Amino acid sequence: MKQRYDHDLAYMLQYEHVAWFEDGKVRILDRRIYPEKTEYVECESYEQVAKAIADMVTQSAGPYTAAGMGMALAAWQCRSLTKEKQLSFLAKASERISHARPTTANRMEQITQNAYKMAQNALEEGKNAYEAIFLGTLESLERRYSIMEKVGNNLARMFPSEGTVLTQCFGETIIGMMLRAARAMNKKVKFFCAETRPYLQGARLTATCCSQMGFDTTVITDNMVAYAMQNKHIDLFTSAADTIARDGYIANKIGTYQIAILAKHFGIPYFVTGIPDKNKKTSADIVIEERNPLDVLSFRGVRHTAPQVKAIYPSFDVTPPSLISGVVTDKGIFSPYDLEMYFKDAVQQFY
Amino acid sequence: MKQRYDHDLAYMLQYEHVAWFEDGKVRILDRRIYPEKTEYVECESYEQVAKAIADMVTQSAGPYTAAGMGMALAAWQCRSLTKEKQLSFLAKASERISHARPTTANRMEQITQNAYKMAQNALEEGKNAYEAIFLGTLESLERRYSIMEKVGNNLARMFPSEGTVLTQCFGETIIGMMLRAARAMNKKVKFFCAETRPYLQGARLTATCCSQMGFDTTVITDNMVAYAMQNKHIDLFTSAADTIARDGYIANKIGTYQIAILAKHFGIPYFVTGIPDKNKKTSADIVIEERNPLDVLSFRGVRHTAPQVKAIYPSFDVTPPSLISGVVTDKGIFSPYDLEMYFKDAVQQFY
Repeated sequence: MKQRYDHDLAYMLQYEHVAWFEDGKVRILDRRIYPEKTEYVECESYEQVAKAIADMVTQSAGPYTAAGMGMALAAWQCRSLTKEKQLSFLAKASERISHARPTTANRMEQITQNAYKMAQNALEEGKNAYEAIFLGTLESLERRYSIMEKVGNNLARMFPSEGTVLTQCFGETIIGMMLRAARAMNKKVKFFCAETRPYLQGARLTATCCSQMGFDTTVITDNMVAYAMQNKHIDLFTSAADTIARDGYIANKIGTYQIAILAKHFGIPYFVTGIPDKNKKTSADIVIEERNPLDVLSFRGVRHTAPQVKAIYPSFDVTPPSLISGVVTDKGIFSPYDLEMYFKDAVQQFY
Repeated sequence: MKQRYDHDLAYMLQYEHVAWFEDGKVRILDRRIYPEKTEYVECESYEQVAKAIADMVTQSAGPYTAAGMGMALAAWQCRSLTKEKQLSFLAKASERISHARPTTANRMEQITQNAYKMAQNALEEGKNAYEAIFLGTLESLERRYSIMEKVGNNLARMFPSEGTVLTQCFGETIIGMMLRAARAMNKKVKFFCAETRPYLQGARLTATCCSQMGFDTTVITDNMVAYAMQNKHIDLFTSAADTIARDGYIANKIGTYQIAILAKHFGIPYFVTGIPDKNKKTSADIVIEERNPLDVLSFRGVRHTAPQVKAIYPSFDVTPPSLISGVVTDKGIFSPYDLEMYFKDAVQQFY
C-alpha cells in the first residue's frame, strides 16, 4: 500500500505517522508540538484515544484515522470477552470516540459505527475483531487517499502557472496531494501560509509540508492577510473544510471566514476543498465547537493576559456560499450554490 | 502634575512607568513581557535608549517619552564637556534616537530636536541641559495628556450607551483617556481586544488597561474578528494610528487594515484616533517598517516553524480613507477626506 505513494510526499501525509495501531497501543503524532519535536502520544485504551482527539493531539483528517485505530484498540482491549460483551464494549467505544469533538461527530460516527460492523462480521466468522477493524481502517484510508488525489488534481488546475497561493490552517492529505499535483503540472507557485492562531497549524504543519515538498513558503500572522493580498500579489486562496453543508455553507478553522471576506474585497478567488456532507442539509446543522479560552489567553502554557481578562475560542467559523468561488471535490469543481449536483451520480463513500 | 489624574487610571497610562530619567539612567517599562512580569530595562546611555526603542521594549506613544528621556540622559552623559562639545554630542544623540524606528522618524525628530533646542537655551543661560530637557519632556507629556483627554472624550461620545467596542493593538494614552471618558459618560460598554500578533499588544496591554479600569474585557485571536463581528454584536471598531496623513490614509499596527475592511463588510463604523501629521501630505510619505521575520517564525524565542520556512513582518499597514468613519482628534471628529479642516485653526503643538 505504501508503495503507491512517492517517497517524497510530505512526512505528515504518511498515515502511519498520523495514528497507528500496533501491539495493543495506538501511537498518535503529537501535532501540537510538531515540527519542533516529533513525538507520539501512546494510547493504551480507547478512552485515551478519545481524550487525545479532544485534546487536539491530532486534527484535520487525523482524528478520522485515530478513530478507526482507536476502535481497533477497543477491540483489542475486549478480545477475551464473550462475543456479546465484545460488541457491547465496542458500542460504548464507538459512542465515546465519535463524540470526542462535537463539530465532526457525525462523520466520526460513520467511521466508528462502520468499525463496529466490521467487528460484528469478523466475530460471526470466528475472526479477530481488532485485525478486521485495523485492516478496514487501512482500506478506508486507501479510499480516502485516492479520492483526495483527485481533489488535489482538481485544485492544482486552478493555480496560476506562476504565482502565489494563500492557505489557511492545515488540510493534511489534501495539502500533500495538492502540492504533488502542482509539481506534476509544473506550476511555479509560492505559498503564503496564515499561521492560524491559537494552534498555529498553518505555521507549524502546512508551511512544513509546502517547504518539504520544495515550494517557496512564507508564514504570515493572521493579521497580515490584507497586507499580503495588497502587497504580495496573492492569486488564489484555498482551504480545506471540516464540513461542507449541502446549501454551500462551509465550516472550517476559525479565520477562514474573514480571509474569504478579504479575498472577495481584493477580487481573489477562494476555492474550498472537500466532499459535501450528505447529512448536513444546511448551515443550521453545523455545530461550532467552543474550545478552552485558556488557549487564547496563554501560549505554550504561559499566560500573557491579566487574570480578569476573558477570551472566546470558537474552533471554527462558517463561510457562506457568496464568498466561495468553487467547491473542489473528487468529481470536479462545483458551484457552492448547486452542490446537489455532486450527489446526482452514485455517491462515492468518503471513508 | 500627577495630581491631575485619577489614581485609578490604568497603570500604563502613568508616564513615569513608561520611561523615566533619574540618577543618570533611563528606566523603560518592558512591554514585551508585561503583564506577566513588571520589569524595566535600564539604559545608561542614549545608545541603549535607541536600542530599546528599536527592540520594542516600549511602543505606541512610549518611544516618544523614551526619546525625550533619552535626550535628557544624553545631556547627562556629556555634562562635563564644553558647551560646544555638549551640543555636538546632543546633535548625534538626536540623530541616533530619532531614527531608531523608521515609521515614526519625523515625529521623533521633532522631539529630539526640540530637546536639543532646550539644551541650547539652558546652556546659554548657564543652566543644566539635562534638567532642562527632563522638565521640557514632562511639559510635553502634560500637553499630550491634555490633548489626548479631549480625543478620549470625543471618541467615547461615539460609543453606544450599551454595547461592544473592538480594539486593535495598544493606543497607550488614548486607551486610558477613552476608558475614563466612557466611564464618566456612564457608557455600558464591553471591550473585545484583538490580540495583535506577533507582539500581542492587544492581549497584553490593551486588555489589561480595559479590565483594570473595570470594563468587561474579552481577548480574541486576530483570526476571530469576522466571527466576533457576526456573532458577538460588535458596535464599533477603534484604533489609534502611528501616522495620519493629510490625505486621510492612516498607518497603524499590522492588522488594522483588514479589520477596517471587515468592519465595512459588516456595517460597523471605524473610528481612528490621533492628530493628523502636518508633514505627511499623502500615504506615499508613510514608510512601512519591516521588522525581524524571526518574531513571526517563533514565539518567546522558541521557533515553531521548519528551518526552510520564511516570513514577513511588516510592522504597520495603511488603511485608506474609504474605510474610515471618522478621524477623532482633540478638536473634534473629522472626515478622513477633509483633514485640512483640522489645520485651519491655529494648529496646536502635539508634543
